[in-house]
Formats: sequence, C-alpha cells, structure tokens
Amino acid sequence: MRVYSTQKDDLADILARKYSETADVSTAVTTIIDRVKADGDQALYQLVKEIDDVTLDSLTVTKEEIADALKATSPELIKVIEQSKANILAFHQKQVRQGFVSTEENGVVMGQRILPLARVGVYVPGGTAAYPSTVLMDVLPAKIAGVKKIVMVTPTDSEGKVPAAILATASIAGVDEIYKVGGAHGVAALAYGTETIPKVDKIVGPGNIYVATAKKMVYGVVDIDMIAGPSDVLIVADHSANPRWIAADLLAQAEHDKLAQAILVTTEDALIEKVQKEVEQQLAALPRKEIAAAAIENNGKIILVQNLGEAISIANEIAPEHLELSVSEPFALLGKVENAGSVFLGHHTPEVLGDYFAGPNHTLPTEGTARFYSPLSVDDFVKKSSYLYYTEEAMNAVGEAVELFAETEDLMGHARSMKVRREEKE
Amino acid sequence: MRVYSTQKDDLADILARKYSETADVSTAVTTIIDRVKADGDQALYQLVKEIDDVTLDSLTVTKEEIADALKATSPELIKVIEQSKANILAFHQKQVRQGFVSTEENGVVMGQRILPLARVGVYVPGGTAAYPSTVLMDVLPAKIAGVKKIVMVTPTDSEGKVPAAILATASIAGVDEIYKVGGAHGVAALAYGTETIPKVDKIVGPGNIYVATAKKMVYGVVDIDMIAGPSDVLIVADHSANPRWIAADLLAQAEHDKLAQAILVTTEDALIEKVQKEVEQQLAALPRKEIAAAAIENNGKIILVQNLGEAISIANEIAPEHLELSVSEPFALLGKVENAGSVFLGHHTPEVLGDYFAGPNHTLPTEGTARFYSPLSVDDFVKKSSYLYYTEEAMNAVGEAVELFAETEDLMGHARSMKVRREEKE
Repeated sequence: MRVYSTQKDDLADILARKYSETADVSTAVTTIIDRVKADGDQALYQLVKEIDDVTLDSLTVTKEEIADALKATSPELIKVIEQSKANILAFHQKQVRQGFVSTEENGVVMGQRILPLARVGVYVPGGTAAYPSTVLMDVLPAKIAGVKKIVMVTPTDSEGKVPAAILATASIAGVDEIYKVGGAHGVAALAYGTETIPKVDKIVGPGNIYVATAKKMVYGVVDIDMIAGPSDVLIVADHSANPRWIAADLLAQAEHDKLAQAILVTTEDALIEKVQKEVEQQLAALPRKEIAAAAIENNGKIILVQNLGEAISIANEIAPEHLELSVSEPFALLGKVENAGSVFLGHHTPEVLGDYFAGPNHTLPTEGTARFYSPLSVDDFVKKSSYLYYTEEAMNAVGEAVELFAETEDLMGHARSMKVRREEKE
Repeated sequence: MRVYSTQKDDLADILARKYSETADVSTAVTTIIDRVKADGDQALYQLVKEIDDVTLDSLTVTKEEIADALKATSPELIKVIEQSKANILAFHQKQVRQGFVSTEENGVVMGQRILPLARVGVYVPGGTAAYPSTVLMDVLPAKIAGVKKIVMVTPTDSEGKVPAAILATASIAGVDEIYKVGGAHGVAALAYGTETIPKVDKIVGPGNIYVATAKKMVYGVVDIDMIAGPSDVLIVADHSANPRWIAADLLAQAEHDKLAQAILVTTEDALIEKVQKEVEQQLAALPRKEIAAAAIENNGKIILVQNLGEAISIANEIAPEHLELSVSEPFALLGKVENAGSVFLGHHTPEVLGDYFAGPNHTLPTEGTARFYSPLSVDDFVKKSSYLYYTEEAMNAVGEAVELFAETEDLMGHARSMKVRREEKE
C-alpha cells in the first residue's frame, strides 16, 4: 500500500483516487430503453436473449420457484436471515416519522402529510454480486414505509434460474413480485412498465454501469435512490489498534471490486509496517485475492497524520462510505465527523457487522457523495404532501400583502385570484 | 376549455396532456459543462457573452449592489417579504428532525445523525420568471437546516444587472454569495466550482430546458432537488363552489406558461358553463392573456364526475402539483388524497396564498411526479449518517451468524474480518 504523510505530501496527491476509464454506454442504454418502451415484454424477451444469452419461457418467478428456493436454503441460513431481518426492522422502525399540523388561533390550519410510495422496484444484480443481504437492506425499509407493491427484477443464470438464496431472502423480506430481467432492460421495464411488469414510482438497488446509466436516464420519470460507484472504507487508527484486524477490514473492502478504495489514516508510525505485512499475508489466503490485490494496488493507501483531529479532517474531505474509528475513545470523535455514510466505532465493530446484521442500512453513498447523499432509509420510500386552509377572515387579513407580492412578480392573474374573493365576500 | 365526462369518455383520453416538442439540448449542454470544467471563470465570462450577450466586469454581486437594491425596494414590499419570510420559517421549522440513538442492554449502541449540507447552490431564473418568492422558498429551508454557505447564481439583464427585488429578497433571506451567471453555465459552475464560484453539494431551483438538462447531467456529482416541468393545478369543485373564483384560479395557473395545466373536476353539471364564461371574460382582462389563452387551449380541461370520490381518484391519477378542494367539506377529502404536492382546502384558500405567503413551500413536484417527489423542505438540505458500536462480547455473540452470511455471499474476506477478531480475544 502506498504511504503518505500529511507532513510531507500534498493534500491533493493524498486524496487522488483512481477510477476506471468508464466507457460511455449511453447510446447502447438509450436504445435498450427505447426498445422496452416501444415493445414491452417482447423487447424484454429479445434483450434477455441478445444480451444475457438466456431464453426465458416466462418473465415471472413462480410461487413454485420460491417454494423450491426456500427448501434449498439451509435452516441455519434462514435463521440468520430472519435474525438480520429483525435487527434491520428494529433500526429502521426508528426512522418512521409523523406528519405535523399547525392549528392557529385565527382559524388557519396547515401541515404536512407523509405518505408511502405506491410501487417500488428493487434491482438485484446477478453473478458474483448477487447478495441476499442487499435484498434485505433494500426491501425492508420499503415494507416499514408501507409501500403497497414491491417489485424485484434480477437477471438469471444461463438456465433461466435466480439463485435460491436471493429468492428465499426476497420471500422472507416480503417482496410481492419477482421478474427475471436485469441490466438496463430491467430498469427500463420498471420505469415504463410492460404487459407483465408494473411501472413503479421509484427504483432502488445497485448494479453495473448499464444499470447505473439506465437509472440516471429514467430519473425524473421515476425517482431513484442514488447512483452507486465502487465501495470504499476509511479506517482511522491510533496506538490501540490491532494491525491484523485493520488489515482484515481493508481487505474485506478490497475484495468487492478492483476499484474499491481501502484507506488507513493513522497517528501511529509504528502501525504502518505491521499493517503492510498483515495485508500481504492475509491477501495470499483470500479466494478473491486477484480482485483484492488490484484494489489495494489501485486505491489502497496509508496516510500518516499528526493527530486524530487531522485524521477526521481527512475523513471529512474523502467523505467515505464506511468510516471505522479504530481508536481507544471512538465516541469522542463522532461529533467531528461531517461526511460519512456509516460510522463503525471501536475495535469490535468491523464494517462486516453492519454489512449483514446489526440493523443500519448497508446501501450507502459511495465516491465521496456522503457529502450530500444519505444511507438508504424509510425516508426513501415516502413522499410528503403539504396542506393549507384559510378562513374568509384570515384570507382577507392578508389579501393586500399577497396582491402586492403577486404584482411585484407581474403575475396579475395571481393577484386577481385573491382580488375576486375580496370583492365578493360571502 | 374542453369538457370530459367520466361517464362517456375514456380515462386515457381524459388524462392525456400536451407537452412541447422539447428539443434535445443535451449536446449543447454537454459542451457548456465541459468548457466550464476546463476553463472556469474564463469560460463563464465567454459563455455569458456568447449566450446571454452580456459583457460582465465581475461575476460577483457586490455589497454595494445589494445595498442599492434594498434602497430601491419599497418599504411596503420589504414588509410583505419579511412577513412572508416569518411565515415560511415558522412552517419549515416544524420539519426539523432529530437524529436517534438506540442503546441496548448488551452494550450495543446504534443511531442516526442528521447533519446540514455544507454548501448549497440556489438557481434563480431571470427574465419574466424572476420571482422573489422563489428566492424565499428555496433559501429559507436551507437556512433552517443549518447550511453554512448558500450561493445564488442568476442571469442578469443586458446591462449586467440583477433585478432589485431579487437581490433585496436574497439579502433578506440570508444568501451568502450571489453570482451573475445563469443557464447551463451557472449550473456547471455550481457543480464543479471555478476560481470565483465555490463548488456546492446540492443545486436547487427552477429553470428553463438548458438549466433542467444541466441539472440532470450533473446529478451524482452533486445532488439536485428535482427536475421541474410546467406548473399545474387541479381544482375539485362541488355545488358550493364559486365559478368566478374557480375561473380566476385556473387562469392564475395558466398565466405561468403556455404548457401549464389547469383542470377543473366537478360533480356539478351546472357549474361547467358558468366557469367557461368566467374564464373567457377574465382572460380578456389579463396582461398575460396570450400565455394564459395558450395554456387553456393546450391543457385546460373540465371533467364531470359522478361523485367526489371519483374526483379524488382522478386527482390521484394526475398527481397534481397544486390541488384545490373547493368543496363544502374539504377536510373530509384530505385523507383520500394520495398524490398531490400541496393541497388547498376550501373556498378561501386560493393557491396564491401558498405561492407567496402562508408558509408551506411553493417548490413542488410537477408533471405527475407528486407520485414520488415531495415539496422542497428542510429534509432537502440535510444528510443522514448512521453509526454502530459493538462490545467484544456482543460481537462474539453474533460472530458465527455473520460469518455464515458472508460465506453465503462468497465474500471470505468479510468472514475473515470477523474471524480474526474472534480468534484473538483481547
């Protein structure tokens, strides 16, 4: 891992991150979306054949397939999924908010209602990125919000099958309908609807560059959660940190993706060499060592800082998806953290606890977007609607002021809407 | 206005809406964004000259210009702006939410913090759509959220001046910095930053097709509020409604834009002709009658329904930006409303009260996006960050479950991050 020091190196060099040369797939995705809009199901069957090389008899996952998937899943795993589900529900239940109303003495009433989205689409990637945990994280907040219909789309294997763990988890999470279509075509189906797949109000979930591009293109037709890039972790460590544990956490991030980012920021010069050695040793034993090694090579960094305040300043600049505070007094730093998707406090809270189990969401803002995006939450599955009521007297009391404002904007029709009511008292 | 009846006409015909043939400006906008990214301020000066035909000495609105604008604004108008500001602050203050924490008996602590965005950019259109009220609506929720820096960009007139009412309102609202650049170039400056204009975390505010396209293109680099289209109103009226008032409210909407939508849904056959006549008469007296007449021609409709339940069903299908319930018992219908940006209850609550004065936000979802978007609110100017703390004992208690989940996903590095801690107890 490259080593930097805030004493010697330029901040811009320290912060530089390597991204892939992302091909511009927008022409291909535009064509896919147009085909799905024009030909619906027929386009989906053709695109699944052309792009995924799969011949489907039906787009719909049947009840039998789900029952088979549940049977094929070990009772131990089902128990773990159920525990994780309970933890996620308990945490997200705390995000539920009420509307409000203000009732004033002059008879004016105004407020804000909070209403669930009617239909939500959850995109679940296939292949090596087929994660049951993501199904739980994306579906359960929608259930709590009261979404009436949750529709999942996901690509199949070459035989037209969805992995059993995905189907079993979808069933446990309470997905209403599952369809066998991924990629940009899956996103297009959710955004515009087809004969079989219902049009939704919002699409959530991670995916490859085709999925991300399609999500951005349909944004506005439907809402989307965020545009997700490669995952990242930033670990702040002091003298109390365990180099073996830190190396394991850096590698857990690195095994996701060749462009994943794994950064250690430490006040301890002595820790650096130890972590380097541990990363080397542990890497050799990883099944996904090729990916992890590439990520460490591309975006693995160790940054030596003067003190923990400086460490947090760097974390705030980077705005990590995951921030581990592997320090003796982690809670003392929390109030300084301005930009981070999720913060893991202390030596016994590895990110993996949050990835799978503890309760907070693992769908988090990547690539520094924690500056403005938030972890997926119940808020993502509701909309707000405001309301206002004036009595005749209350309206007349402010009529002149409102007309003056409207006239200032040269909107005489707006002023008239008030004037006709003031002229003709009931 | 065209008249439909749910008894005779097809729902699809009733709901059809006319949009403009929007030119694809994405090539032009891509070039503009690239130029601003590459050449910063220099590109801005050139683009303002090329596109807006204005030669600027400086991009920055000075303190003197703001002081002059305040002097040029009548005390009466300043008083109205201050009243409106107080009402908007009072309403939006109720949207402020606290984070939460869950402290469990086994020592586990987890929660969610709510943090203000650091820097926000407010886009304020120029020309006939230069609305001081929009400055209040877009800036004040950001102030309440605690945003540290609010940057406004807006085009100037041909002499390089911003309208006094806009500058005065920006000053009253508490904008920190104002720059004289509009269009896609203004959006690009906020998204990427230049020597003079700071890069922000989120861009809010309405604009023309160039602005909307630029906002969509930079979405992900920064956050945006929404993609706004032509404004609309839907009025539900029963026997108690006043045709003159309804006509005035339809026209207030219609005067915004030739593609604005103004719909009356009524149970009263007798009301239809009266409203038609009033629209005709009042239209003739409107300064913006050309725009309003076009809007009425394009998207003006009267829909006759069997009962108020059916009226609300149609409203829910259309998901109006503004919904007026001009009925004798408006509160009785509120619970049936699923999709509407803002609801105006009763005969003495014309939309104009909300546009300028009452407190709820007037930046609302258009074109049916109230299905999933919300009125602009304090929530738009904060982000959330979750946190998690486990003790050694609590971690060990769930270690096996977490490892099983990680192994199911073939992420052995994730499993190892737990395993190394369980092997080496402290």
